[in-house]
Amino acid sequence: MKLASLKGGRDGRLVVVSNDLAWFTEAHHIAPTLQAALDHWEGCEPALRGLAESLEHGAVPRERFHEHQAASPLPRAYQWADGSAYVNHVALVRQARAADMPDSFWTDPLMYQGGSDGFLSPRDPIPLSDPAWGLDLEGEIAVIVGDVAQGATREQGLAAVRLVMLCNDVSLRNLIPGELAKGFGFFQSKPACAFSPVAVTTDALPGWKDGRLSGALSVELNGKALGEADAGVDMTFDFGTLIAHAARTRTLSAGSIIGSGTVSNRGPDGGPGKAVADGGVGYSCLAELRTVETLTGGAAKTPFLAAGDTLRIEMRDARRHSIFGAIEQVVAGS
Amino acid sequence: MKLASLKGGRDGRLVVVSNDLAWFTEAHHIAPTLQAALDHWEGCEPALRGLAESLEHGAVPRERFHEHQAASPLPRAYQWADGSAYVNHVALVRQARAADMPDSFWTDPLMYQGGSDGFLSPRDPIPLSDPAWGLDLEGEIAVIVGDVAQGATREQGLAAVRLVMLCNDVSLRNLIPGELAKGFGFFQSKPACAFSPVAVTTDALPGWKDGRLSGALSVELNGKALGEADAGVDMTFDFGTLIAHAARTRTLSAGSIIGSGTVSNRGPDGGPGKAVADGGVGYSCLAELRTVETLTGGAAKTPFLAAGDTLRIEMRDARRHSIFGAIEQVVAGS
Repeated sequence: MKLASLKGGRDGRLVVVSNDLAWFTEAHHIAPTLQAALDHWEGCEPALRGLAESLEHGAVPRERFHEHQAASPLPRAYQWADGSAYVNHVALVRQARAADMPDSFWTDPLMYQGGSDGFLSPRDPIPLSDPAWGLDLEGEIAVIVGDVAQGATREQGLAAVRLVMLCNDVSLRNLIPGELAKGFGFFQSKPACAFSPVAVTTDALPGWKDGRLSGALSVELNGKALGEADAGVDMTFDFGTLIAHAARTRTLSAGSIIGSGTVSNRGPDGGPGKAVADGGVGYSCLAELRTVETLTGGAAKTPFLAAGDTLRIEMRDARRHSIFGAIEQVVAGS
Repeated sequence: MKLASLKGGRDGRLVVVSNDLAWFTEAHHIAPTLQAALDHWEGCEPALRGLAESLEHGAVPRERFHEHQAASPLPRAYQWADGSAYVNHVALVRQARAADMPDSFWTDPLMYQGGSDGFLSPRDPIPLSDPAWGLDLEGEIAVIVGDVAQGATREQGLAAVRLVMLCNDVSLRNLIPGELAKGFGFFQSKPACAFSPVAVTTDALPGWKDGRLSGALSVELNGKALGEADAGVDMTFDFGTLIAHAARTRTLSAGSIIGSGTVSNRGPDGGPGKAVADGGVGYSCLAELRTVETLTGGAAKTPFLAAGDTLRIEMRDARRHSIFGAIEQVVAGS
């Protein structure tokens, strides 16, 4: 089942989208918003699934689905907790900052509490007031969970996964070192992020297995491939483990979003791997590419994002059909 | 005007409370929840103020207001961003951890992104699964804002303040050093916090001036005074400055909660001050008391909270009437 929130009001308007992303049908008679459906999932899920089936059969009124009319599936959420499950990425970015990485990072998930009071729509421009902030994209996988009890196990965490999305976790790289040095984590360095036009249940994702989503995450910058890393590879912590980590000392409420962190694959030699142009799977963020440039050439060559740059984040199935729709954003200067 | 959310559903039921906290009247014909009122504040505020006036005059149906029937004013919120405006507190707690404090902390606000997907009700027990986590209370002031534009000034931030509350920012002290060492800020070390039964507009707070709330914040532990620090004193950053800090790189959506951090006053000599029993204004959290014990006696004597401990956080007006109602919680072991 695929769900989306068409733009309108602070929370959008819940619709069911066809598997091929061509059509939608209104779902407001079941729940006005995705958050409302998540709040009452046991009652809403069967009705939404019935509607999805009717949509596939052409048995309900339908309209063309246009990705640019979609907000993020949850235009605002009560929680956005982003992990760093691809530890390879963390190791690389730290290497570039000349910051040590403790061995415990391979066994104890990193996670930060992100802002969730308003997400960009998947086709919204990314506002950038100051180019010196060092704007970067980060291609990620994210899940929306139902209610999770405090102390939940990995298996209970996995059972709570309701929907899967793609994410562009927008980062202001040049604000990060100063902010992390203060010891309280990210705040100004993580402005609003964006999610894919469509959120998908795990049963509709052939690549979903054991809390990981296999498949190449296509990340393009100005029409050129930046990354094609497989989201199912080198994910040190699966989503069940991330959810259990988040719920260790507190409950998680329905509609909480848990992120994977930047998708990142090692090269065949265990190193950072090559750029797409050089035959590798590339990188899901500029920081990683710049790190590799620094490690291999002595200095970063690729600049951070500037006004007018466009990015696209998408995942396609075996037949090259878009699964979640595309996050496609232009950087807008002020 | 005083507003509260009576328990019921995930978001409670909006009511208007009389100035003396004795009565309430239903407000659901104006907005079903406080978040809904904040989402449409321009339309709802005049109607809510009219209802509040009618309640004072006995001109509308009213019922007895019982604080234990209230949830936190926003039982869940889209954002909880907690500052550390009483830099004195930060300096002391860091001193106890033998952690340096950069001079910039006096000019650049510290702020962390907290979990907001579910707050404890003001009379709810605080669940504690493991006493070794080092449970602490933190008495704070918090404001709920309307929409704030990215790049807002201090003055624009102040103009966006809609309501003021008290907060118990629950902390798991023994999880903090390990978590902060990982560099991504608090997560497991900050479980759900609680807010006062009632949220109050600034015009109904004689102590509100220039973004600070003057008045003694009474913090009691097991019936004895722990702290009586004045929230208007030694607040290095006022709420306007905290809001502008939060909005530097992104918008803040209506219903975002901004916290002051633990209220803390210096002693007359500029030092940490004395306990209430010793004639001082005491402390709004145990960590600060334990720090002072360590600094003066070589070791902390007061343990962190254990099952059965009770705390109470309240602020009274000049006539000793409770302004926000009391946060009153017992620690519940698992």
